[in-house]
Amino acid sequence: MTPTKQRLVDAALETLKQDGYAGTTARGIAGRAGANPALIYYHFGDITNLLLAALDETSARRMQRYEALLEKTETIEDLVQLARDIYREDLEAGHVTVLSELIAGSLQHKALGPEVIKRLRPWVEYTTRSIEKVTRGTSLETLIPAKDVALGIVAFYLGVDLLHQLDPEESPADRLFDHASRLAPALGFLANFATLEEENT
Amino acid sequence: MTPTKQRLVDAALETLKQDGYAGTTARGIAGRAGANPALIYYHFGDITNLLLAALDETSARRMQRYEALLEKTETIEDLVQLARDIYREDLEAGHVTVLSELIAGSLQHKALGPEVIKRLRPWVEYTTRSIEKVTRGTSLETLIPAKDVALGIVAFYLGVDLLHQLDPEESPADRLFDHASRLAPALGFLANFATLEEENT
Repeated sequence: MTPTKQRLVDAALETLKQDGYAGTTARGIAGRAGANPALIYYHFGDITNLLLAALDETSARRMQRYEALLEKTETIEDLVQLARDIYREDLEAGHVTVLSELIAGSLQHKALGPEVIKRLRPWVEYTTRSIEKVTRGTSLETLIPAKDVALGIVAFYLGVDLLHQLDPEESPADRLFDHASRLAPALGFLANFATLEEENT
Repeated sequence: MTPTKQRLVDAALETLKQDGYAGTTARGIAGRAGANPALIYYHFGDITNLLLAALDETSARRMQRYEALLEKTETIEDLVQLARDIYREDLEAGHVTVLSELIAGSLQHKALGPEVIKRLRPWVEYTTRSIEKVTRGTSLETLIPAKDVALGIVAFYLGVDLLHQLDPEESPADRLFDHASRLAPALGFLANFATLEEENT
Protein backbone atom coordinates (compact mmCIF):
# COMPACT_ATOMS: atom_id res chain seq x y z
CA MET A 1 0.00 0.00 0.00
CA THR A 2 1.34 3.48 -0.87
CA PRO A 3 1.93 5.88 2.06
CA THR A 4 -1.07 8.02 1.03
CA LYS A 5 -3.43 5.01 0.85
CA GLN A 6 -2.16 3.84 4.23
CA ARG A 7 -2.74 7.30 5.73
CA LEU A 8 -6.28 7.37 4.35
CA VAL A 9 -7.02 3.88 5.73
CA ASP A 10 -5.65 4.82 9.17
CA ALA A 11 -7.68 8.05 9.13
CA ALA A 12 -10.83 6.12 8.12
CA LEU A 13 -10.32 3.72 11.07
CA GLU A 14 -9.85 6.59 13.49
CA THR A 15 -12.89 8.45 12.13
CA LEU A 16 -15.14 5.36 12.44
CA LYS A 17 -13.95 4.91 16.04
CA GLN A 18 -14.41 8.57 16.99
CA ASP A 19 -17.42 9.67 14.98
CA GLY A 20 -19.23 6.44 14.07
CA TYR A 21 -20.51 5.44 10.64
CA ALA A 22 -23.11 8.22 10.56
CA GLY A 23 -20.44 10.86 11.31
CA THR A 24 -17.89 9.53 8.83
CA THR A 25 -17.49 11.72 5.74
CA ALA A 26 -14.89 11.90 2.97
CA ARG A 27 -14.03 15.39 4.12
CA GLY A 28 -13.56 14.27 7.75
CA ILE A 29 -11.29 11.38 6.79
CA ALA A 30 -9.25 13.48 4.36
CA GLY A 31 -8.87 16.22 7.01
CA ARG A 32 -7.57 13.71 9.53
CA ALA A 33 -5.15 12.28 6.94
CA GLY A 34 -4.00 15.74 5.87
CA ALA A 35 -4.95 14.84 2.31
CA ASN A 36 -7.23 16.18 -0.40
CA PRO A 37 -10.67 14.43 -0.37
CA ALA A 38 -10.25 13.79 -4.12
CA LEU A 39 -7.49 11.30 -3.23
CA ILE A 40 -10.11 9.04 -1.61
CA TYR A 41 -11.92 8.72 -4.94
CA TYR A 42 -8.64 8.41 -6.83
CA HIS A 43 -7.35 5.55 -4.64
CA PHE A 44 -10.56 3.76 -3.58
CA GLY A 45 -13.26 4.73 -6.08
CA ASP A 46 -15.69 5.67 -3.33
CA ILE A 47 -15.90 6.05 0.44
CA THR A 48 -17.57 2.63 0.92
CA ASN A 49 -14.52 0.92 -0.56
CA LEU A 50 -12.28 2.94 1.74
CA LEU A 51 -14.33 1.87 4.79
CA LEU A 52 -14.13 -1.77 3.69
CA ALA A 53 -10.36 -1.38 3.24
CA ALA A 54 -10.27 -0.02 6.80
CA LEU A 55 -12.19 -3.08 8.05
CA ASP A 56 -9.76 -5.31 6.12
CA GLU A 57 -6.84 -3.53 7.78
CA THR A 58 -8.09 -3.88 11.38
CA SER A 59 -9.18 -7.49 10.67
CA ALA A 60 -5.75 -8.41 9.27
CA ARG A 61 -3.97 -6.89 12.29
CA ARG A 62 -6.27 -8.74 14.69
CA MET A 63 -5.98 -12.02 12.79
CA GLN A 64 -2.19 -11.95 13.09
CA ARG A 65 -2.62 -11.67 16.85
CA TYR A 66 -5.33 -14.41 16.87
CA GLU A 67 -2.97 -16.83 15.14
CA ALA A 68 -0.23 -16.20 17.73
CA LEU A 69 -2.73 -16.86 20.54
CA LEU A 70 -3.98 -20.06 18.89
CA GLU A 71 -0.48 -21.57 18.88
CA LYS A 72 -0.57 -21.78 22.69
CA THR A 73 -4.12 -23.19 22.80
CA GLU A 74 -4.30 -26.91 23.54
CA THR A 75 -7.28 -27.66 25.82
CA ILE A 76 -10.91 -26.57 26.17
CA GLU A 77 -9.84 -24.42 29.16
CA ASP A 78 -7.26 -22.74 26.90
CA LEU A 79 -9.98 -22.19 24.29
CA VAL A 80 -12.21 -20.33 26.75
CA GLN A 81 -9.21 -18.21 27.77
CA LEU A 82 -8.47 -17.58 24.08
CA ALA A 83 -12.04 -16.37 23.49
CA ARG A 84 -11.81 -14.12 26.53
CA ASP A 85 -8.45 -12.61 25.48
CA ILE A 86 -9.68 -12.00 21.94
CA TYR A 87 -12.87 -10.37 23.20
CA ARG A 88 -11.03 -8.02 25.58
CA GLU A 89 -8.29 -7.09 23.10
CA ASP A 90 -10.78 -6.50 20.25
CA LEU A 91 -12.68 -4.18 22.53
CA GLU A 92 -9.58 -2.25 23.65
CA ALA A 93 -8.19 -1.97 20.12
CA GLY A 94 -11.47 -0.43 18.96
CA HIS A 95 -11.94 -3.28 16.50
CA VAL A 96 -15.39 -3.95 17.97
CA THR A 97 -16.39 -0.32 17.41
CA VAL A 98 -15.30 -0.34 13.76
CA LEU A 99 -17.15 -3.60 13.11
CA SER A 100 -20.31 -2.50 14.93
CA GLU A 101 -20.38 0.81 13.09
CA LEU A 102 -20.05 -0.90 9.72
CA ILE A 103 -22.81 -3.36 10.67
CA ALA A 104 -25.03 -0.41 11.58
CA GLY A 105 -24.06 1.18 8.27
CA SER A 106 -24.98 -2.04 6.44
CA LEU A 107 -28.57 -1.70 7.61
CA GLN A 108 -28.62 1.73 5.94
CA HIS A 109 -26.74 0.75 2.80
CA LYS A 110 -27.92 -2.73 1.96
CA ALA A 111 -25.10 -3.28 -0.56
CA LEU A 112 -22.59 -3.13 2.31
CA GLY A 113 -24.15 -6.13 4.16
CA PRO A 114 -22.81 -9.00 2.01
CA GLU A 115 -19.38 -7.28 1.92
CA VAL A 116 -19.24 -7.15 5.73
CA ILE A 117 -20.44 -10.78 5.96
CA LYS A 118 -17.69 -11.78 3.51
CA ARG A 119 -15.17 -10.24 5.93
CA LEU A 120 -16.53 -12.32 8.83
CA ARG A 121 -15.65 -15.53 6.97
CA PRO A 122 -11.96 -15.63 8.03
CA TRP A 123 -13.20 -15.40 11.65
CA VAL A 124 -15.57 -18.32 11.18
CA GLU A 125 -12.69 -20.28 9.63
CA TYR A 126 -10.33 -19.32 12.47
CA THR A 127 -12.92 -20.30 15.09
CA THR A 128 -13.51 -23.59 13.28
CA ARG A 129 -9.76 -24.36 13.35
CA SER A 130 -9.54 -23.45 17.05
CA ILE A 131 -12.43 -25.78 17.96
CA GLU A 132 -11.00 -28.58 15.83
CA LYS A 133 -7.61 -28.18 17.48
CA VAL A 134 -8.92 -28.70 21.04
CA THR A 135 -11.61 -31.32 20.29
CA ARG A 136 -9.56 -33.55 17.98
CA GLY A 137 -9.74 -37.14 19.20
CA THR A 138 -12.47 -36.41 21.78
CA SER A 139 -16.15 -37.34 21.61
CA LEU A 140 -17.03 -33.67 21.03
CA GLU A 141 -15.52 -33.95 17.57
CA THR A 142 -18.51 -35.92 16.29
CA LEU A 143 -21.27 -34.11 18.22
CA ILE A 144 -21.72 -30.98 16.05
CA PRO A 145 -19.58 -30.00 13.04
CA ALA A 146 -16.94 -27.50 14.26
CA LYS A 147 -17.94 -25.14 11.43
CA ASP A 148 -21.49 -24.84 12.83
CA VAL A 149 -20.30 -24.32 16.41
CA ALA A 150 -18.01 -21.62 15.00
CA LEU A 151 -20.95 -19.89 13.26
CA GLY A 152 -22.83 -19.91 16.56
CA ILE A 153 -19.84 -18.46 18.43
CA VAL A 154 -19.35 -15.67 15.87
CA ALA A 155 -23.10 -14.82 16.09
CA PHE A 156 -22.84 -14.80 19.88
CA TYR A 157 -19.72 -12.60 19.74
CA LEU A 158 -21.55 -10.07 17.53
CA GLY A 159 -24.51 -10.01 19.91
CA VAL A 160 -22.35 -9.52 23.00
CA ASP A 161 -20.44 -6.77 21.19
CA LEU A 162 -23.67 -4.99 20.36
CA LEU A 163 -24.97 -5.23 23.91
CA HIS A 164 -21.67 -3.73 25.04
CA GLN A 165 -21.86 -0.90 22.48
CA LEU A 166 -25.44 -0.12 23.51
CA ASP A 167 -24.66 0.03 27.21
CA PRO A 168 -21.13 -0.79 28.47
CA GLU A 169 -22.37 -0.81 32.09
CA GLU A 170 -24.78 -3.68 31.46
CA SER A 171 -22.40 -5.84 29.38
CA PRO A 172 -22.87 -9.54 30.23
CA ALA A 173 -19.53 -10.65 28.71
CA ASP A 174 -17.46 -11.01 31.89
CA ARG A 175 -20.12 -12.99 33.73
CA LEU A 176 -20.59 -15.36 30.78
CA PHE A 177 -16.83 -15.91 30.41
CA ASP A 178 -16.63 -16.69 34.14
CA HIS A 179 -19.23 -19.45 33.76
CA ALA A 180 -17.49 -20.80 30.65
CA SER A 181 -14.15 -20.92 32.52
CA ARG A 182 -15.82 -22.75 35.40
CA LEU A 183 -17.50 -25.33 33.14
CA ALA A 184 -14.63 -25.87 30.68
CA PRO A 185 -12.74 -28.47 32.78
CA ALA A 186 -15.93 -30.53 33.24
CA LEU A 187 -16.62 -30.39 29.51
CA GLY A 188 -13.06 -31.46 28.78
CA PHE A 189 -13.39 -34.33 31.25
CA LEU A 190 -16.70 -35.48 29.76
CA ALA A 191 -15.28 -35.30 26.23
CA ASN A 192 -12.31 -37.50 27.08
CA PHE A 193 -14.32 -39.79 29.34
CA ALA A 194 -16.82 -40.52 26.56
CA THR A 195 -13.94 -41.26 24.17
CA LEU A 196 -12.39 -43.76 26.59
CA GLU A 197 -15.78 -45.42 27.05
CA GLU A 198 -16.05 -45.89 23.30
CA GLU A 199 -12.56 -47.37 23.11
CA ASN A 200 -13.38 -49.86 25.86
CA THR A 201 -16.52 -51.22 24.21
CA MET B 1 -53.93 4.99 23.67
CA THR B 2 -55.96 7.48 21.63
CA PRO B 3 -56.72 6.52 18.01
CA THR B 4 -54.31 9.20 16.73
CA LYS B 5 -51.47 8.00 18.93
CA GLN B 6 -52.16 4.42 17.85
CA ARG B 7 -52.13 5.46 14.18
CA LEU B 8 -48.79 7.23 14.65
CA VAL B 9 -47.28 4.22 16.42
CA ASP B 10 -48.47 1.85 13.68
CA ALA B 11 -47.12 4.23 11.02
CA ALA B 12 -43.77 4.44 12.85
CA LEU B 13 -43.53 0.62 12.91
CA GLU B 14 -44.32 0.36 9.22
CA THR B 15 -41.84 3.14 8.34
CA LEU B 16 -39.03 1.47 10.32
CA LYS B 17 -39.76 -1.84 8.55
CA GLN B 18 -39.93 -0.29 5.06
CA ASP B 19 -37.37 2.52 5.18
CA GLY B 20 -35.06 1.64 8.09
CA TYR B 21 -33.95 3.95 10.88
CA ALA B 22 -31.95 6.19 8.54
CA GLY B 23 -34.99 6.69 6.28
CA THR B 24 -37.47 7.31 9.10
CA THR B 25 -38.56 10.95 9.35
CA ALA B 26 -41.39 12.70 11.18
CA ARG B 27 -42.81 13.73 7.84
CA GLY B 28 -42.69 10.16 6.49
CA ILE B 29 -44.44 8.74 9.56
CA ALA B 30 -47.08 11.49 9.63
CA GLY B 31 -47.73 11.02 5.90
CA ARG B 32 -48.27 7.29 6.38
CA ALA B 33 -50.60 7.98 9.33
CA GLY B 34 -52.49 10.68 7.42
CA ALA B 35 -51.73 13.08 10.27
CA ASN B 36 -50.01 16.43 10.71
CA PRO B 37 -46.31 16.00 11.72
CA ALA B 38 -46.94 18.44 14.59
CA LEU B 39 -49.08 15.73 16.24
CA ILE B 40 -45.92 13.60 16.72
CA TYR B 41 -44.40 16.35 18.87
CA TYR B 42 -47.73 16.99 20.61
CA HIS B 43 -48.24 13.33 21.57
CA PHE B 44 -44.66 12.05 21.98
CA GLY B 45 -42.42 15.10 22.56
CA ASP B 46 -39.98 13.99 19.86
CA ILE B 47 -39.52 11.35 17.20
CA THR B 48 -37.18 9.25 19.38
CA ASN B 49 -39.96 8.76 21.93
CA LEU B 50 -42.34 7.76 19.14
CA LEU B 51 -39.85 5.17 17.88
CA LEU B 52 -39.43 3.79 21.41
CA ALA B 53 -43.24 3.65 21.74
CA ALA B 54 -43.26 1.68 18.48
CA LEU B 55 -40.68 -0.76 19.90
CA ASP B 56 -42.81 -1.08 23.05
CA GLU B 57 -45.85 -1.86 20.91
CA THR B 58 -44.22 -4.60 18.82
CA SER B 59 -42.53 -6.02 21.96
CA ALA B 60 -45.84 -6.14 23.87
CA ARG B 61 -47.58 -7.91 20.98
CA ARG B 62 -44.79 -10.43 20.69
CA MET B 63 -44.61 -10.99 24.45
CA GLN B 64 -48.30 -11.93 24.56
CA ARG B 65 -47.58 -14.58 21.96
CA TYR B 66 -44.42 -15.73 23.80
CA GLU B 67 -46.43 -16.27 27.00
CA ALA B 68 -48.98 -18.42 25.15
CA LEU B 69 -46.15 -20.53 23.68
CA LEU B 70 -44.48 -20.94 27.08
CA GLU B 71 -47.60 -22.51 28.59
CA LYS B 72 -47.14 -25.56 26.37
CA THR B 73 -43.39 -25.82 27.07
CA GLU B 74 -42.42 -28.60 29.50
CA THR B 75 -39.17 -30.24 28.38
CA ILE B 76 -35.80 -29.17 26.98
CA GLU B 77 -36.96 -30.41 23.56
CA ASP B 78 -40.02 -28.13 23.89
CA LEU B 79 -37.72 -25.25 24.82
CA VAL B 80 -35.65 -25.62 21.65
CA GLN B 81 -38.89 -25.73 19.64
CA LEU B 82 -40.09 -22.61 21.50
CA ALA B 83 -36.87 -20.75 20.61
CA ARG B 84 -37.25 -21.81 16.99
CA ASP B 85 -40.91 -20.72 16.79
CA ILE B 86 -40.14 -17.38 18.40
CA TYR B 87 -37.22 -16.75 16.07
CA ARG B 88 -39.24 -17.54 12.93
CA GLU B 89 -42.32 -15.59 13.99
CA ASP B 90 -40.28 -12.55 15.09
CA LEU B 91 -38.65 -12.56 11.67
CA GLU B 92 -41.95 -12.89 9.78
CA ALA B 93 -43.68 -10.22 11.89
CA GLY B 94 -40.88 -7.76 11.10
CA HIS B 95 -40.08 -7.50 14.81
CA VAL B 96 -36.45 -8.38 14.09
CA THR B 97 -36.23 -5.57 11.52
CA VAL B 98 -37.63 -2.96 13.93
CA LEU B 99 -35.25 -4.05 16.68
CA SER B 100 -32.19 -4.20 14.39
CA GLU B 101 -32.96 -0.76 12.96
CA LEU B 102 -33.27 0.76 16.44
CA ILE B 103 -30.02 -0.92 17.49
CA ALA B 104 -28.32 0.57 14.43
CA GLY B 105 -29.87 3.92 15.34
CA SER B 106 -28.52 3.58 18.88
CA LEU B 107 -24.97 3.56 17.57
CA GLN B 108 -25.72 6.93 15.94
CA HIS B 109 -27.67 8.41 18.84
CA LYS B 110 -25.93 7.20 21.96
CA ALA B 111 -28.83 8.28 24.22
CA LEU B 112 -31.03 5.66 22.55
CA GLY B 113 -28.78 2.72 23.57
CA PRO B 114 -29.73 2.40 27.25
CA GLU B 115 -33.42 2.85 26.30
CA VAL B 116 -33.23 -0.06 23.84
CA ILE B 117 -31.34 -2.18 26.39
CA LYS B 118 -34.06 -1.42 28.97
CA ARG B 119 -36.60 -2.86 26.51
CA LEU B 120 -34.59 -6.08 26.17
CA ARG B 121 -35.01 -6.74 29.91
CA PRO B 122 -38.50 -8.32 29.67
CA TRP B 123 -37.01 -10.75 27.12
CA VAL B 124 -34.19 -11.69 29.46
CA GLU B 125 -36.78 -12.22 32.21
CA TYR B 126 -39.00 -14.30 29.92
CA THR B 127 -36.04 -16.42 28.79
CA THR B 128 -35.01 -16.88 32.44
CA ARG B 129 -38.51 -18.11 33.35
CA SER B 130 -38.58 -20.47 30.35
CA ILE B 131 -35.24 -22.02 31.32
CA GLU B 132 -36.29 -22.33 34.97
CA LYS B 133 -39.52 -24.02 33.94
CA VAL B 134 -37.84 -26.85 32.02
CA THR B 135 -34.76 -27.32 34.24
CA ARG B 136 -36.55 -27.24 37.63
CA GLY B 137 -35.57 -30.30 39.65
CA THR B 138 -32.81 -31.35 37.22
CA SER B 139 -29.06 -31.07 37.69
CA LEU B 140 -28.95 -28.26 35.11
CA GLU B 141 -30.70 -26.02 37.63
CA THR B 142 -27.51 -25.62 39.67
CA LEU B 143 -24.99 -25.52 36.81
CA ILE B 144 -25.34 -21.90 35.67
CA PRO B 145 -27.90 -19.36 36.99
CA ALA B 146 -30.84 -19.33 34.53
CA LYS B 147 -30.56 -15.53 34.35
CA ASP B 148 -27.03 -15.74 32.95
CA VAL B 149 -27.93 -18.44 30.43
CA ALA B 150 -30.82 -16.17 29.41
CA LEU B 151 -28.44 -13.21 28.88
CA GLY B 152 -26.30 -15.44 26.68
CA ILE B 153 -29.31 -16.58 24.66
CA VAL B 154 -30.54 -13.01 24.12
CA ALA B 155 -27.04 -11.96 23.00
CA PHE B 156 -26.94 -14.93 20.64
CA TYR B 157 -30.42 -14.10 19.31
CA LEU B 158 -29.32 -10.52 18.55
CA GLY B 159 -26.21 -11.76 16.75
CA VAL B 160 -28.13 -14.28 14.64
CA ASP B 161 -30.70 -11.59 13.80
CA LEU B 162 -27.96 -9.25 12.65
CA LEU B 163 -26.31 -11.89 10.49
CA HIS B 164 -29.73 -12.51 8.94
CA GLN B 165 -30.32 -8.79 8.31
CA LEU B 166 -26.87 -8.42 6.73
CA ASP B 167 -27.32 -11.35 4.37
CA PRO B 168 -30.49 -13.51 4.56
CA GLU B 169 -28.93 -16.08 2.20
CA GLU B 170 -26.08 -16.85 4.60
CA SER B 171 -28.19 -16.99 7.78
CA PRO B 172 -26.96 -19.78 10.09
CA ALA B 173 -30.17 -19.91 12.21
CA ASP B 174 -31.82 -23.00 10.70
CA ARG B 175 -28.68 -25.10 10.84
CA LEU B 176 -28.03 -24.15 14.48
CA PHE B 177 -31.64 -24.90 15.50
CA ASP B 178 -31.35 -28.32 13.80
CA HIS B 179 -28.32 -29.17 15.94
CA ALA B 180 -30.04 -27.91 19.09
CA SER B 181 -33.11 -30.08 18.33
CA ARG B 182 -30.87 -33.09 17.79
CA LEU B 183 -28.94 -32.57 21.06
CA ALA B 184 -31.87 -31.53 23.29
CA PRO B 185 -33.04 -35.08 24.17
CA ALA B 186 -29.49 -36.07 25.20
CA LEU B 187 -29.18 -32.95 27.35
CA GLY B 188 -32.53 -33.71 28.97
CA PHE B 189 -31.45 -37.28 29.61
CA LEU B 190 -28.12 -36.19 31.13
CA ALA B 191 -29.86 -33.59 33.31
CA ASN B 192 -32.28 -36.14 34.79
CA PHE B 193 -29.67 -38.90 34.98
CA ALA B 194 -27.33 -36.71 37.05
CA THR B 195 -30.23 -35.84 39.37
CA LEU B 196 -31.08 -39.50 39.98
CA GLU B 197 -27.41 -40.21 40.68
CA GLU B 198 -27.41 -37.54 43.38
CA GLU B 199 -30.60 -38.90 44.94
CA ASN B 200 -29.11 -42.39 45.11
CA THR B 201 -25.93 -41.40 46.93
